Amino acid sequence: MTKKLKMALAGGGPGAFIGAVHRIAAELDGEIELVSGVFSSDPERSLQGGRGYGLSDERIYPSIEALVKAETARPDGAEFVTIATPNHTHFSIAKTALEGGLAVMSDKPMTATLAEAEALGEVVDRCGRPFGLTYTYTGYPLARHAKALIAEGEIGEVRKVFVEYPQGWLATPLEQTTSKQAGWRADPARSGPGGAISDIGVHAFNMAEFVTGLEVERLAADLAAIVPGRKLDDDCTVLLRFSGGARGVLMASQIEIGALNGLAFKIHGSKGALHWRQEEPNKLWLHRLDGRTELIRTADPGLSPAAVLSTRLPGGHPEGYLEAFANLYRDFAAVLRGGTAPLLPGFKAGLRSMRFIETAVFASRSGAGWVDFNP
Amino acid sequence: MTKKLKMALAGGGPGAFIGAVHRIAAELDGEIELVSGVFSSDPERSLQGGRGYGLSDERIYPSIEALVKAETARPDGAEFVTIATPNHTHFSIAKTALEGGLAVMSDKPMTATLAEAEALGEVVDRCGRPFGLTYTYTGYPLARHAKALIAEGEIGEVRKVFVEYPQGWLATPLEQTTSKQAGWRADPARSGPGGAISDIGVHAFNMAEFVTGLEVERLAADLAAIVPGRKLDDDCTVLLRFSGGARGVLMASQIEIGALNGLAFKIHGSKGALHWRQEEPNKLWLHRLDGRTELIRTADPGLSPAAVLSTRLPGGHPEGYLEAFANLYRDFAAVLRGGTAPLLPGFKAGLRSMRFIETAVFASRSGAGWVDFNP
Amino acid sequence: MTKKLKMALAGGGPGAFIGAVHRIAAELDGEIELVSGVFSSDPERSLQGGRGYGLSDERIYPSIEALVKAETARPDGAEFVTIATPNHTHFSIAKTALEGGLAVMSDKPMTATLAEAEALGEVVDRCGRPFGLTYTYTGYPLARHAKALIAEGEIGEVRKVFVEYPQGWLATPLEQTTSKQAGWRADPARSGPGGAISDIGVHAFNMAEFVTGLEVERLAADLAAIVPGRKLDDDCTVLLRFSGGARGVLMASQIEIGALNGLAFKIHGSKGALHWRQEEPNKLWLHRLDGRTELIRTADPGLSPAAVLSTRLPGGHPEGYLEAFANLYRDFAAVLRGGTAPLLPGFKAGLRSMRFIETAVFASRSGAGWVDFNP
Amino acid sequence: MTKKLKMALAGGGPGAFIGAVHRIAAELDGEIELVSGVFSSDPERSLQGGRGYGLSDERIYPSIEALVKAETARPDGAEFVTIATPNHTHFSIAKTALEGGLAVMSDKPMTATLAEAEALGEVVDRCGRPFGLTYTYTGYPLARHAKALIAEGEIGEVRKVFVEYPQGWLATPLEQTTSKQAGWRADPARSGPGGAISDIGVHAFNMAEFVTGLEVERLAADLAAIVPGRKLDDDCTVLLRFSGGARGVLMASQIEIGALNGLAFKIHGSKGALHWRQEEPNKLWLHRLDGRTELIRTADPGLSPAAVLSTRLPGGHPEGYLEAFANLYRDFAAVLRGGTAPLLPGFKAGLRSMRFIETAVFASRSGAGWVDFNP
Repeated sequence: MTKKLKMALAGGGPGAFIGAVHRIAAELDGEIELVSGVFSSDPERSLQGGRGYGLSDERIYPSIEALVKAETARPDGAEFVTIATPNHTHFSIAKTALEGGLAVMSDKPMTATLAEAEALGEVVDRCGRPFGLTYTYTGYPLARHAKALIAEGEIGEVRKVFVEYPQGWLATPLEQTTSKQAGWRADPARSGPGGAISDIGVHAFNMAEFVTGLEVERLAADLAAIVPGRKLDDDCTVLLRFSGGARGVLMASQIEIGALNGLAFKIHGSKGALHWRQEEPNKLWLHRLDGRTELIRTADPGLSPAAVLSTRLPGGHPEGYLEAFANLYRDFAAVLRGGTAPLLPGFKAGLRSMRFIETAVFASRSGAGWVDFNP
Repeated sequence: MTKKLKMALAGGGPGAFIGAVHRIAAELDGEIELVSGVFSSDPERSLQGGRGYGLSDERIYPSIEALVKAETARPDGAEFVTIATPNHTHFSIAKTALEGGLAVMSDKPMTATLAEAEALGEVVDRCGRPFGLTYTYTGYPLARHAKALIAEGEIGEVRKVFVEYPQGWLATPLEQTTSKQAGWRADPARSGPGGAISDIGVHAFNMAEFVTGLEVERLAADLAAIVPGRKLDDDCTVLLRFSGGARGVLMASQIEIGALNGLAFKIHGSKGALHWRQEEPNKLWLHRLDGRTELIRTADPGLSPAAVLSTRLPGGHPEGYLEAFANLYRDFAAVLRGGTAPLLPGFKAGLRSMRFIETAVFASRSGAGWVDFNP
Repeated sequence: MTKKLKMALAGGGPGAFIGAVHRIAAELDGEIELVSGVFSSDPERSLQGGRGYGLSDERIYPSIEALVKAETARPDGAEFVTIATPNHTHFSIAKTALEGGLAVMSDKPMTATLAEAEALGEVVDRCGRPFGLTYTYTGYPLARHAKALIAEGEIGEVRKVFVEYPQGWLATPLEQTTSKQAGWRADPARSGPGGAISDIGVHAFNMAEFVTGLEVERLAADLAAIVPGRKLDDDCTVLLRFSGGARGVLMASQIEIGALNGLAFKIHGSKGALHWRQEEPNKLWLHRLDGRTELIRTADPGLSPAAVLSTRLPGGHPEGYLEAFANLYRDFAAVLRGGTAPLLPGFKAGLRSMRFIETAVFASRSGAGWVDFNP
Repeated sequence: MTKKLKMALAGGGPGAFIGAVHRIAAELDGEIELVSGVFSSDPERSLQGGRGYGLSDERIYPSIEALVKAETARPDGAEFVTIATPNHTHFSIAKTALEGGLAVMSDKPMTATLAEAEALGEVVDRCGRPFGLTYTYTGYPLARHAKALIAEGEIGEVRKVFVEYPQGWLATPLEQTTSKQAGWRADPARSGPGGAISDIGVHAFNMAEFVTGLEVERLAADLAAIVPGRKLDDDCTVLLRFSGGARGVLMASQIEIGALNGLAFKIHGSKGALHWRQEEPNKLWLHRLDGRTELIRTADPGLSPAAVLSTRLPGGHPEGYLEAFANLYRDFAAVLRGGTAPLLPGFKAGLRSMRFIETAVFASRSGAGWVDFNP
């Protein structure tokens, strides 16, 4: 094992669960270590946050600019920045880091608006540094195996795609309480034009394109703010048309009481179907045209290389969210070390997701008629 | 127990599974007996079919007209006719029976077209005989219990309705083979303007209205004939708006390989959610706003009267499709004996379903924009 | 269809659920009809019970002797007697019926004691009339399919058998209340020497032998009356040794709160394993040595003839307890009409079950050491 | 966060999956770092193994003695040794480490024999250093929650304990191939007197005592080497009697094809029951005497402090085996820092497990009669 890659973290201060998740996922395989960060726009809170990660004060910064300047000046400085902040800050942090010569691993959605996403494309191209996006759920071994099976033609031509992402945590007006999470996510100024569509709908959208290898070409959408007083959508249904003619339905909701984090897909082809649920990630169902139903489990013999490489444990030892997340970091590390990682979501996936948000928001306002995805 | 009610069967000849199902369901509780029928439009096949049910030749007829005439002339004649024929014959059989003074229990969809349905309304009103429709799945104890829970406010105000009915048996062009079932269902002349929407979509539609007690007011639809060469839709997604503002998504498909008879609903309210699947009919999930998840099982203590009355066995003894079907016949028998059966689907449910088919077909052709349900 | 076979019912009076179940199951396929019965040892209650089945008073008897005498004298008299009474009366009813020339379909356990069972053997042999036992769960299509798969060597040599039957309804001293069911089942005078072992353990035992085709040769047992004050066992664990060397574990309990009717088996062979649960009877799991896991569903293509013949509906239409029960009656009808029904449980299965009860009770008292099954 | 605790690893060289697992689990929460180790008894392989973990050569040792001597002499030396070697070396490594002043975190079973376990007790007492055992499965949040619910009386008095641990990986004579894992586990010289009972049976035993808070007092056992040629048991059934009178059944097998790592328990009390399965660790079922069935999920609101403290992610984000393992290391870190960790398995759990192995092996040989657990 060569020496560890050095990571700086932007965001993830006190109260933010996702920062700790990034730290665990990045370090899980012993290839990366957190060395510095800016953990809040408030310098005092940033310091407090950084100490919580065991960092020395000199590696805790009050701003991304300060971080990039200082870290790039050190021989042991950070080689990349992980962005785990609210959506509206993604663009400027990424831009600063990339222009400072650092690679970037960013939370989704990539930016707050499509315009920012397009602007970021120029930066990414110009700076030439690796850029990854944590579409975490694509890191699950069996999601990757499903992708491989479809690519190999195991279910024939894809005809119909169903993908859903139900949650229930916003079934009440939580943003009117002290919940920090709910606060920024339900605020258009910090979250962008989409609510649920932006927070979780993009995961569903990205998973649909990831696993099928197809691209959405048109859509019709029905978005709603169901909870009284809410400003952004909390329930979304989007009808999809894919390249090649496959049809799709995407549902994302944050008002389905009892639903936790129910990302799931069912891909229907001319020769079979594949079903997978994030909450039981170690099971993949394969239905065959001849009537056979097979349950595929993580670490079963004969899985695709992509699945095998994304698995750490023998069968029956549940691998979960952190392990899926770590698979993205493992991919990212490979890229940083000069290799390739074809499954790692990057700028293109981010741009398409931002276009998805804005197209769906536009389509819904226009009355559910069909709208072209690409301009 | 008073004497058994007498049933005539139209349809259900050799090769038609649903006729035998009607016989079993009708007779299950010992309240009804099959006494006569017309089992095919071909007199020879009708005779053959009737003998298969153990009927004597004199009670087997070549036409519904002959049946009604002869049976109403007998002191021990049939009191009602069960219609289990292809859609395009429902109207004329029902009309003949009703005008002959017999009650009618009909398969769904009620007729082949909305126009026929409206015409049937006049007949039903004029003749004043009981008319039931076998929306079989509403007969399950836990579907009825879900309806009761919602009516009692257990999940608060209904916000979102998801109902689906996936099947896979038409994933190939089966209608180009010798399959009798597939043949008439995929033929507009015998099935009407809808394919999957008419065969199974109406079950989903009826279940959505049954369990929530709400009525659809507007819809947008995306129907497709996915299998090459097919004339009618085999895959449907319909967006719904209910009275009171609840939103809904209805999916029905016959090309989802591996799916058998997957009617299911998830009803999301302001205080909880209910999930149910026809293939595991003895389980009902109740999610509560406070985070508790409860599994309700058929015959659990404390269920609603509607559920208790629809249950024959102690808990853990699976009750299935035939028992649900028999519950409709039990309701129908109650009506025939002069009682009431508020849960029995009747003409109104049939008319709404026919309107649903035609509105969805129209909406889909018009590009998925929103269309009013009621004229 | 030839004319219906005529059934008399012994037992099943007011409050006894199993009588109505026999009536439904027997009549389900239109091959059998209930024509008479003795429904209670109290003539007045017998009359009341029989009227509940729609019988005319002349076909309702005060005793089995009266029934046999009168029915055998009628040209349209009963051809067999179904016994649905408490255990201690099985022997005398069966004997009277058989000696009167009637066939018998009996509830399990066959008799109250092993001595009675052996005595019944002589009667059965002497009278030569068909004798069936309602080991209902062997009527499920997928239990029969499992038997066929094992017989065909699909899982190789059977090595280990796990069978369980958990219930929870006797977790409290219900027999000290007015529960009629609990009353006689917990009373050694009416139930025989076994409690749970006799009521449900025999189902598990019979299923183990049925599905594997093996016979138990030795056992060790740990039976207990866990609920304070109970006289008979309510919780049983029995270690088994089968012919050929396979090992087994049988668990039956009536104090497992939340368990309803959880009969289940897992059969482990040298090439695979089969898992089945009565409460989800339309699923059978096949695990193969190469790592594949298959879910087999009722009415899937390619099932064994035994499964196909035991199935009435297309896949996805749940078939439950009544349908399984009806399969036994269909088998019994075939025998009565002069055919064969190799899967129908009969005297031999009954005798082995009675020996199982007494051997297990003896083994448990002797301290869980190994005891030979056969004398 | 204070500075990281320093860990040395014994075992876990090339090909040994469990070593990498220890490293990940120990470091997951950022409280511990691997600094040195001895990875094989072969110095060259040890060096190769250590480099795989990114260690510098000077911290890679050829023997535990060398490790203890060198590390205790360094200011930045290891504070504890994790033992991840075959069973027969546990005792001497633990003894060397403890006597050298280091704490020990050991794989189970604690030693190869009960005599060694008893000898280790003297060492642990004398040295006074923390000693932890990786009964990993007790680290799952919902296993800990089940323990809390039982302790609080939620299911009343415990009456019956069912615990099982099925696997299938030794359904063929894998030890006659090149499998290193199978090789030592099936070899009495390296594994001790037990096979499956020692490898996985102890997990089941420990879980039973952990979750109920009860102690086994007597047992009867039926152990077998089912695969031809195998020297140690690969299939075990053990009947249990607990303090206070509760009964139990423990099943552990390595020949159940299709089973992966199916540790599971069902605890039956006078007021309810709890069911949990390791392969779906984020679900816990609570059955109540009044007929309600509740599904408890990791991170649900209102869980016990023990469960909350063992959970890192919001609900619906699956936490698996590595996270459970990390919970033990978190507990161990707390102890090393001077705190307490009442749920951490330690010497006593290890001693009881060793006694369980030897008692079960003895009982099985003696014919399944009851044997006292404590001498």
